[in-house]
Amino acid sequence: MRATVMYGIGDVRVENIPDAVIQSPTDAVVRITRACICGSDLWPYREMPPDQAGRRMGHEAIGIVEAVGTEVRNVKAGDLVIMPFAYSDGTCDFCHEALQTSCVHGGFFGVGGEAGGGQAEAVRIPQAEGTLFVMPVGEDDALMPSLLTLSDVMGTGYHAALSARVDPGKRVAVIGDGAVGLCGVIAAKRLGAERIILLGRHPDRIALARAFGATDIVPERGEEAVERVRALTHGHGAHSVLECVGTATAIDTALSIVRAGGAVGRVGVPHYEETPASKQAFYDNVTVSGGPAPVRAYIEELLPDVLEGRIQPGRVFDRTVDLDGVPDGYRAMDQRQSIKVMVKP
Amino acid sequence: MRATVMYGIGDVRVENIPDAVIQSPTDAVVRITRACICGSDLWPYREMPPDQAGRRMGHEAIGIVEAVGTEVRNVKAGDLVIMPFAYSDGTCDFCHEALQTSCVHGGFFGVGGEAGGGQAEAVRIPQAEGTLFVMPVGEDDALMPSLLTLSDVMGTGYHAALSARVDPGKRVAVIGDGAVGLCGVIAAKRLGAERIILLGRHPDRIALARAFGATDIVPERGEEAVERVRALTHGHGAHSVLECVGTATAIDTALSIVRAGGAVGRVGVPHYEETPASKQAFYDNVTVSGGPAPVRAYIEELLPDVLEGRIQPGRVFDRTVDLDGVPDGYRAMDQRQSIKVMVKP
Repeated sequence: MRATVMYGIGDVRVENIPDAVIQSPTDAVVRITRACICGSDLWPYREMPPDQAGRRMGHEAIGIVEAVGTEVRNVKAGDLVIMPFAYSDGTCDFCHEALQTSCVHGGFFGVGGEAGGGQAEAVRIPQAEGTLFVMPVGEDDALMPSLLTLSDVMGTGYHAALSARVDPGKRVAVIGDGAVGLCGVIAAKRLGAERIILLGRHPDRIALARAFGATDIVPERGEEAVERVRALTHGHGAHSVLECVGTATAIDTALSIVRAGGAVGRVGVPHYEETPASKQAFYDNVTVSGGPAPVRAYIEELLPDVLEGRIQPGRVFDRTVDLDGVPDGYRAMDQRQSIKVMVKP
Repeated sequence: MRATVMYGIGDVRVENIPDAVIQSPTDAVVRITRACICGSDLWPYREMPPDQAGRRMGHEAIGIVEAVGTEVRNVKAGDLVIMPFAYSDGTCDFCHEALQTSCVHGGFFGVGGEAGGGQAEAVRIPQAEGTLFVMPVGEDDALMPSLLTLSDVMGTGYHAALSARVDPGKRVAVIGDGAVGLCGVIAAKRLGAERIILLGRHPDRIALARAFGATDIVPERGEEAVERVRALTHGHGAHSVLECVGTATAIDTALSIVRAGGAVGRVGVPHYEETPASKQAFYDNVTVSGGPAPVRAYIEELLPDVLEGRIQPGRVFDRTVDLDGVPDGYRAMDQRQSIKVMVKP
């Protein structure tokens, strides 16, 4: 089968690899019908040390189950399923607490581990019973993009908003105008935020943010951005800050614009070792929360909104490629020519 | 009047200073009947650069109102009051949100600012209406110690527990066997924790912690302590960690023993610049919260438990001195010969 493999900085290839097969009784094999490229895939694209073995990429997908292991009961061949970016057994303490990303038998797709990647014709799903979400609808081109976001970015934006304790009446700031930040805007609006300030400057992204519910755009950066957000929030800062980037600058800005007693929900994979501004955050009773989103837990909650069109996170996709087009898709996202690229193998 | 003034490392003196007087219509003057020495007072005692002007010390007190400014209505001369460690106007947005430590007209006692200190015969109370809590009881020697803890340590321990999201069934670890840590044990038990693990090693403190509800004591330090806590928590760590010390080692330990999806409530004034282990905390979806406790908000809630004897945080006092004995009190606490010293001016 064909799959996307990364070998080092900027070196992403689509190659023939051995077919995905059932290896364990708890596995399934899913034929991918939709996948995508994630902002977090750009980190290895920009930084990965050369790796001759290569890393199979992709952690977001929708597909059709082709085969299941002997212990898989609630998923069967022919089911249309969402594959969350983490696999999880669905039965451990953490899964019961809706923190599937910490599952004791869990792991992540597309990070070079034993599990494969979603930017491929097919993928082996470990812990298929706990991992896969069987969709109550059939293939529907109009709905697929938004359903696909439930495998990561919409659930991740929602996790940022919950971690930042967004609720009705809150003033919210979203750092990052990528797909996750834009989904964070959707999530903040869905949770009743009074004001949603997006820190971003790319016209197409800003337009989408406004369509999703952003009330204010702050194109400034650094200290100027901090001042602008303060001016927009009675001088005190935002109750909730969604940190959807993961750089040291982003978390620093987040901690500078959060209100005393407020919360920062961070979902950008951190590319910093320590959290800065720790003392001020202490004196201001600021909460820092977040991490990899347990998107498996959120699918059920967000699905009705997607199916009934109340939220349209699929609008973050502004380009579609086939498998051969994946390397171009990486390039487009890396150069910010595209917000998010969908892959139709 | 006589008051405690610190001039540098180990240099704490009791001196005659000008009497506390009403300076603003929102002030009150309180004659102190009970005060105490706080673990946080030991930081300047150990580190304060020489300061010829001196810093008036003490931020926890009970006393009798002697005079009030013309705008103070809900407090009157003769009232027995608790003075929380922060003053606050009681009317701003932050006060309404029960975050009085961020009051826009607020500040702290005993930190060298304009406000005086509680280890004195009297103190001027800015923003008296919002700050002082009038007690529904008269002077009662048996109750005074526990009521006095509502000015700081009991409220601070409670804040640690709330920030660490203690609730019924949780496994809780408390770092620090000082008065705040011990009050954190009381708070965790009050909130229904299933297991309360105290990290500490001093026999008298351990005995008190057990009396307050600690189920396990971990005397080990560093990596050994981490392993012991993990062994006591099904291998996963504590749902809630109360960080009641403030050193880099303490926050590091807190982040090492917290369970995935759990929370660290930090109330020890941080003597570290950045929060370590930030990446692991992210991958584990750990929440870090806390700060200076809005004890003013907690008095009403905790008071019935104190008055009816359900909690006895006053047991943290194991030594009582008069004003002349304050320097000895600092020495005793610094050398860990005393958990907490009460001052009866």
